[in-house]
Amino acid sequence: MRVILSGICNTDLELLRGYHGFSGIPGHEFVGVVEGPASSPFLGKRVVGEINLTCRRCAWCRRGLGRHCPKRTVLGIVKHPGAHAEYLTLPEDNLYIVPSHIADEAAVFVEPLAAACEILEQVPVTRKTRAAVLGVGKLGTLCAAVLENAGADVTRLSRKSRARPRSFDLVVEATGSPAGMPRAIELAAPRGTIVWKSTHHAPASFDAAPVVVNEITIVGSRCGRFEPALDLLGRGKVDVAGLLSAELPLSRAPRALALAGKPGVRKVLLRPTA
Amino acid sequence: MRVILSGICNTDLELLRGYHGFSGIPGHEFVGVVEGPASSPFLGKRVVGEINLTCRRCAWCRRGLGRHCPKRTVLGIVKHPGAHAEYLTLPEDNLYIVPSHIADEAAVFVEPLAAACEILEQVPVTRKTRAAVLGVGKLGTLCAAVLENAGADVTRLSRKSRARPRSFDLVVEATGSPAGMPRAIELAAPRGTIVWKSTHHAPASFDAAPVVVNEITIVGSRCGRFEPALDLLGRGKVDVAGLLSAELPLSRAPRALALAGKPGVRKVLLRPTA
Repeated sequence: MRVILSGICNTDLELLRGYHGFSGIPGHEFVGVVEGPASSPFLGKRVVGEINLTCRRCAWCRRGLGRHCPKRTVLGIVKHPGAHAEYLTLPEDNLYIVPSHIADEAAVFVEPLAAACEILEQVPVTRKTRAAVLGVGKLGTLCAAVLENAGADVTRLSRKSRARPRSFDLVVEATGSPAGMPRAIELAAPRGTIVWKSTHHAPASFDAAPVVVNEITIVGSRCGRFEPALDLLGRGKVDVAGLLSAELPLSRAPRALALAGKPGVRKVLLRPTA
Repeated sequence: MRVILSGICNTDLELLRGYHGFSGIPGHEFVGVVEGPASSPFLGKRVVGEINLTCRRCAWCRRGLGRHCPKRTVLGIVKHPGAHAEYLTLPEDNLYIVPSHIADEAAVFVEPLAAACEILEQVPVTRKTRAAVLGVGKLGTLCAAVLENAGADVTRLSRKSRARPRSFDLVVEATGSPAGMPRAIELAAPRGTIVWKSTHHAPASFDAAPVVVNEITIVGSRCGRFEPALDLLGRGKVDVAGLLSAELPLSRAPRALALAGKPGVRKVLLRPTA
C-alpha cells in the first residue's frame, strides 16, 4: 500500500535508543491506500492495519491471540519494514477499511487508540472505577479517553501532579519512564490494579514489598484489537486533533524524530508525498 | 495465650535486616493455648490466629478484607508483640480452634499454609494449569502443595533447575530474592500470571518490556484465610513434617534465628517451655 500518513510513536524513539536491537525502517502507525495486488478486494481502499504478522497456525493464532504468536514479525518493530516510508506491505488479514467520515489525521491514531482500548479487555472498568492515568503524553491521553468512555472516574496525573496515595482502584502507567512504576504502586489502593503500558530501554526498579503486602495486580498491556478503536473514532468519542503537534514531509524524518522526542511535543506525523 | 510452639519465617529474618524498621518481639507463626480472660469461650483451647489486628470499621474490614485495613497492626511485624515469646495476645475474632488430630508441629504451619492458599483466591487454577514454583524453601514447598491439591501440573524449580522459557501459565515467585522476578518473567507464557510472594528488603529490578509485550499479569500475594489451610492440614493433604529442620527452646532464639538463615535449612521451631 501507499502510505498517506504515518505517526511517530515513543516506541520508534526507543528503537533508536537500542530497544529490540532494531535496524531497518521503523513506524507502525499509519493510514494508507492499497495499490496492489490488482486482485486484492482492498484495491484502492483507504486502510489501517494490525501490526503483528502472525503464523496463523500456532495455538496463540488459533485462539485469536496472534499478537502473541511466537513466530510473529511486527511492522516497523520486529523484522518487517515499517510505515515511515512511501510504501509498506501487510497481509490482507491485517487490514481494516477506514470509514470515509474518519479523516486521515484521525485514522493514523487507530493503532495507539487500539492499544489504549486493550485495557478494557484485560481489566473490569465500570462507573465505580476510580482510575488514575500517569503520563499526559499521547498514550496516556488516549488511555484516559478510553477509560472515560467506559464510565470510569479518571484523574490524569503529570509528573508534578499530587494525588492521595493508595486511593485508586486502577492506575494506568503510561509515563514511558522507569520512574512511573514506583509512583503507580504508591497510588494504587490495596487489591488495586496497575496497567503497565510503558516500554522503555532502562530496567524498572522498585520496592517489591508494597506490591506483595497490598496485593496489587500489575497487568502488562500492549497492542489491542482495531475494531473498538475504529468504533470510538467513528463516533467522534476521542479528540485526537488535540494530540497533533506537527506534520512534516517524510524527507524531513530525522528532524521529525528529533522534534517528537522533545518535552511537551505530542504526535508528529510524516507525509511521504508532501 | 501461652505459646506452645512458634515458627521462624523468612520475614522474621528480613525484619532483622531492617525490613519495616521493626523493633520489638518478632514471630507470627504459632500454636498456643488460651489462658485468659476467664470469660473467654476459647479458654483452655488450643488455637492458631490470624495475624492482622484490624479496626473492624473501615471499608476494608466491612468487605471482609481486614488484612488490608489501613489501621491494622500485625502480630510480630507491625506494632504488635509477636509469637517468639512465652505469651502473646490477639483479639478473639482472630482465633481458630485447632482440631485435636492436628499435631502442634503441623498447626504451627497454618499461617504460612494460609498464605499459600491465598493464591487460589486470587488466580484461577485448574487441572489445565501448567504451574512453576520458583523457590524450594518453606513457602515455595507449601505453594506447590496447594497448587497440586487444586489439580495443577506443578514444576518445582530451584535456582539451578532448568525449564523452557515462556512455557508456564502460572509462575509462583517464592524465592525470597530479588533474582526471582526476572526469572519468573522469563518462564511465564504470554498472557501468563506471576504470583509474587517474596518480600525482601532489596528493591526488585527487571526489564519491563517482556511484561508489557507478553502482557504478563503480576499478582502480589500475602496473607490468606485460615479455614482452607486448617482444612488441608486436617485432611492430611500437605506434608509439613518434611519441612521441619529443627526445634530449639526459646532461650536459644538467637541461635535458632542464625540457623534458620542458613542455606538448606527449612522450618525452625521455638518452644518456650522446653
